[in-house]
Formats: sequence, structure tokens, C-alpha cells
Amino acid sequence: MKANRITKLFNVKYPIIQAGMIWASGWKLASEVSEAGGLGIIGAGSMYPDVLREHIQKCKKATSKPFAVNVPMLYPDLDKIMEIIIEEKVPIVFTSAGNPKTWTPHLKSHNIKVVHVVSSVKFALKSQEAGVDAVVAEGFEAGGHNGREETTTFTLIPMVKKELTIPLIAAGGIASGSGILAAMILGADAAQIGTRFVASEEGSSHINFKKEVIKAQEGDTRLTLKELAPVRMLKNKFYQDIEKLYSTSPTIEDLQDLLGRARAKKGMFEGDLEEGELEIGQISGLINEILPAKKIMENLIAEFEAAKIEASAIEF
Amino acid sequence: MKANRITKLFNVKYPIIQAGMIWASGWKLASEVSEAGGLGIIGAGSMYPDVLREHIQKCKKATSKPFAVNVPMLYPDLDKIMEIIIEEKVPIVFTSAGNPKTWTPHLKSHNIKVVHVVSSVKFALKSQEAGVDAVVAEGFEAGGHNGREETTTFTLIPMVKKELTIPLIAAGGIASGSGILAAMILGADAAQIGTRFVASEEGSSHINFKKEVIKAQEGDTRLTLKELAPVRMLKNKFYQDIEKLYSTSPTIEDLQDLLGRARAKKGMFEGDLEEGELEIGQISGLINEILPAKKIMENLIAEFEAAKIEASAIEF
Repeated sequence: MKANRITKLFNVKYPIIQAGMIWASGWKLASEVSEAGGLGIIGAGSMYPDVLREHIQKCKKATSKPFAVNVPMLYPDLDKIMEIIIEEKVPIVFTSAGNPKTWTPHLKSHNIKVVHVVSSVKFALKSQEAGVDAVVAEGFEAGGHNGREETTTFTLIPMVKKELTIPLIAAGGIASGSGILAAMILGADAAQIGTRFVASEEGSSHINFKKEVIKAQEGDTRLTLKELAPVRMLKNKFYQDIEKLYSTSPTIEDLQDLLGRARAKKGMFEGDLEEGELEIGQISGLINEILPAKKIMENLIAEFEAAKIEASAIEF
Repeated sequence: MKANRITKLFNVKYPIIQAGMIWASGWKLASEVSEAGGLGIIGAGSMYPDVLREHIQKCKKATSKPFAVNVPMLYPDLDKIMEIIIEEKVPIVFTSAGNPKTWTPHLKSHNIKVVHVVSSVKFALKSQEAGVDAVVAEGFEAGGHNGREETTTFTLIPMVKKELTIPLIAAGGIASGSGILAAMILGADAAQIGTRFVASEEGSSHINFKKEVIKAQEGDTRLTLKELAPVRMLKNKFYQDIEKLYSTSPTIEDLQDLLGRARAKKGMFEGDLEEGELEIGQISGLINEILPAKKIMENLIAEFEAAKIEASAIEF
């Protein structure tokens, strides 16, 4: 293994990052990925402060290797969350959905490495100015909450790479070793992988949701609710209800009323496939089995090596 | 140069196909690309039958190498267009926007190679069943008319590749040699490139439009008019007018009235940057200069070779 800018920054073996995802990535998944040489991330977005502390402590017991916590900055208990992260000496924090200037200096003053998630060139540069250590650039095909620009991974990565000097992590649509190699050829130093790890044994989502993810085919997800916050989900009954509402020219309030509270928990954690919100990426169409996280890592690495050999045989 | 399935099929040197684009790709651009070792395509979508015949004849005079004609099958004079293609012995036809069963057997009975453009796995397989020689799978980031599934190049290519047995051409978001290599690693046999060739000296679009394409940045295009036929365009005044209309909950007829007739011609051929429809892909953000088509081909090939060397140096 040759160190690159991301493996050096995080002190991990492979430039593979398991995305921090609500109702999917707790300590079990994160510690398994870190043990296998990647960077596991605990997704704080679906956790109360005390629950997050418990996940961090369990993760530290399960692995001595680096791991991270992902913090969506629209979180209500943000001060408390950051306090716990600092107290528990979490080595790396991924922030998203907010201004990277707000927390980066404070976290870095505690020797925490900070990565910010963006979906445009403009916010990649703002993050760099804010002093983050690296940027995740996430394409339109990614699951869950997403940018307004709708720029895809294939076009976003080279456009960000052209402007950015700090390390760049590609996200959105990557679920295989050939995907990792393609993202790196387009300009990324590493790949962040979400959807593939949702369909893992250690992922904390409900088994109903995991089974739905591996059943999904090309075209089965959609980015919707753009007036609130754009989010990519499976086209289940709840999605059809959104579509029906759209056909009546709804107000923002109508959309908020339909969304209600805890739709994502209902779908992904409680396994209600009809009424719940099932956030997942387009690349779910390529995933057909639930596997242990360690096996997913082994497959990604083997596929990457195979793709490199195939690439070297392509000639013009 | 090592032949692959696409270079063998078309009898060209490089697996680089210049997309057939309305108001952009006439005989000048197509013949230059073919002369440079790629496959040039005349876009019939903006041509009356007699105009198309003239372009085909001029292309044949300008190059003895293979070229193709792209035919959107919603064309009103389709019988006449196909008759001319057969009479003029065009060796390769790319069809789009229609059922591949309708014309494939007839064209193939005249020894014409047929390629169909799709944006989903489902229609890729339907095209294969219809007997086409190859499929173009075009991602959400592509300029102009586009699919309803919104599947991106990064996720569409591996998903189509997994199911398809005939050769696969990737399109959408590709404008550099590293993009070609990335698309091939994801599973494509070749790359179709549109936006990069719009900003060519030989492209037949108005200079105003070409200059607007090279000025475009990440986030400057949008897929819109999904209720009519989804189309990706620059966010100019006409696009803002569409957005304003959307805010009033318009009917399909309202949208059709705003679109009117010949908007694309007004924008791309007559150079009206305010009232015209300016169809272009997301990757326009990466393109900064208008170049001769021959130079574009040389750059793509040099970048491809450089990307291959870089790829071989990536290690885990």
C-alpha cells in the first residue's frame, strides 16, 4: 500500500471512507470498516447526545484504529454534540449541511481533523478557506440529503479538483472497486461509500429496509422535496404520496405537513416500507446482497486491483 | 492502437464518438473528427431532408473515413430522412427518441450499422433485443434532451454493463481523456462526447452560444421542462422565464406556449442568448476555450494516455 494524501491525513490503510448515514451507521459498522483498514464513520444525525457518546465509546473499545463522526450542522443539540466529540477525543469529524467556518477553528484547536461535505465547486472553495483538512464532494446520485445544483459525480469531481488544493474525497454513486478507481482517475484522492454499506450486516437499519435496498433496480430512486431540502429516496408509497401532492400545486407548508416528523426513522429504522422515508443512492441498483462490512471491504479492494489491471490493458 | 469492440465495429482508430447534436454538428465538424481517427456524427435533428443530403455529400467529399448520422425518431420527415441515408450509403446510423424496433431491421438490411441512444437499463435491453449493433447509455448530466429516470453516467454505465452483451458507449459528462478512461473503467467500450465539440471551431452553432458555453461554470445548467421532454440547458433568461412560469402552477399547454417553436434554433444557431434555448451539458463548466476539432481530438488522446499512466501509479 502506497500512502496518498487521504490515507496519510487519516492514518488509515485504504482510501475508502464509509459514509456517516442516519439510521444506518452506528459503532458496529464504523468499527468494522476501520478494523478492515478503511475509515468508519458514526452518523450523529440520528442520535441524541447521550446515544452518540455511547456509540463513540463502544467504537473505541471495538477498534484502536482511527474513526470519525459525521455531524449535520442543522442538528439542534450541536454545542452538546461537539462537546462530547472533543471530550471523547474523536480524531476526525465530518461536518455537513451548514457553514464550515462555524466549527472548524474550534475543532482544529483540539487537534481534530475536519472534513466538510459539499455538492458544488463554490462550497468546496468556501470549505478550503474555512481551513478544513479535506473536502467530500458529493454528486446528485448520492442517497439522502443532497445539493441544489444537481451536479453529478462524473462532472463534479474534475471541476472541484481543478480549483481545490486540499485533498478531495468523491461521494455519490460509488459502490465497487472500479467505481473507486474511476473516481480517483477523475481527480479524487479517496472515495466515500454510503449505499453499499447500508446493505451490510453491521448496518443499524431495519432488515426490511436493507432487503428493499438490495431489491432496488436502476431508476428506483428519486431526488425530491427540493422546496424543503432535496433528498434522494426509494420510490415507495410515501414517495408516491409526495408525487400526488405535487400534482395539486402544494405550498411549502403542505409539503412540510406531508413529511411530518420522523419519516426517515419510520422507514429506515422501524422498517415501515410504505409510510417511511427510505433514503438511498442510485447505485442501489448495482447491489444485490447484504454482506458483512469486512467482506464488503475485501471485495472493494479486490475489485479495485482487478480494475487497475483492466485499465492498464485498455489501449488506444 | 489496440482494437476494441467499438473501434472494430465502426472501423475507426479511437473509441471516441462525437455526438450528433442539433444546431452544432454538421459535415464540417463530423468530417474533422472522422479524419482525426474518431467517429464524427452529423446531427439530422435540425436539418430538412435536402439539407441533410447536402451535409452527407459534403462529409463524404471531406473524408473517406467512416462517419455516422444521428436521427431523433420523432422527426416529421422520418421516411424521407432514412431514404436519403440509404441512398447516400451512410455506413452508421445512431437513432434516438423512439422505438429501436421501428427502423433497425430496415437499416441493417442495407448493411448499415445501427446504434440506439438510451438513458436506462430497461431501454438498453430493449435496444439489444431490437438487434442494434451497440448502445449509447447517456447520463443525467448530458446536454439537450435526456431521460426521465435521471440516472447519472457514474451509476448508469456499470448498471447497463452488467446486463448488456453488445458494445456499450458512455455519454454524458465526458469532455477529457481522464473522463474517457473513467467511463471505460466503469464498463464502457467507448465514449460519446458532445459539449466539448460544441465549443469547436468547426461546430455550426452561433459564436455567441459557443462563447457562452466556455464561460459556463459548475451549476450553470439545469434539466427542465420535464412535463414536455426533459432537456438540459444553460440558465439564461429563457430558463428564468420557465422558472417563473413554474411558480404559477402552469398546465402542459402553458409550458408549450412559452416554449413555442424554434427556441433551440433561436439560441444555438441564431445566437439569441436571452430568448433562445441553449442546450449544453454539465461538463461545460470544465471547458474554457474554443478549439479546432482536430486539436480537441489530439488533447483527448494525450489526456487519455496521461490518465492511464496516473492510474497505474495509484496504489492501495
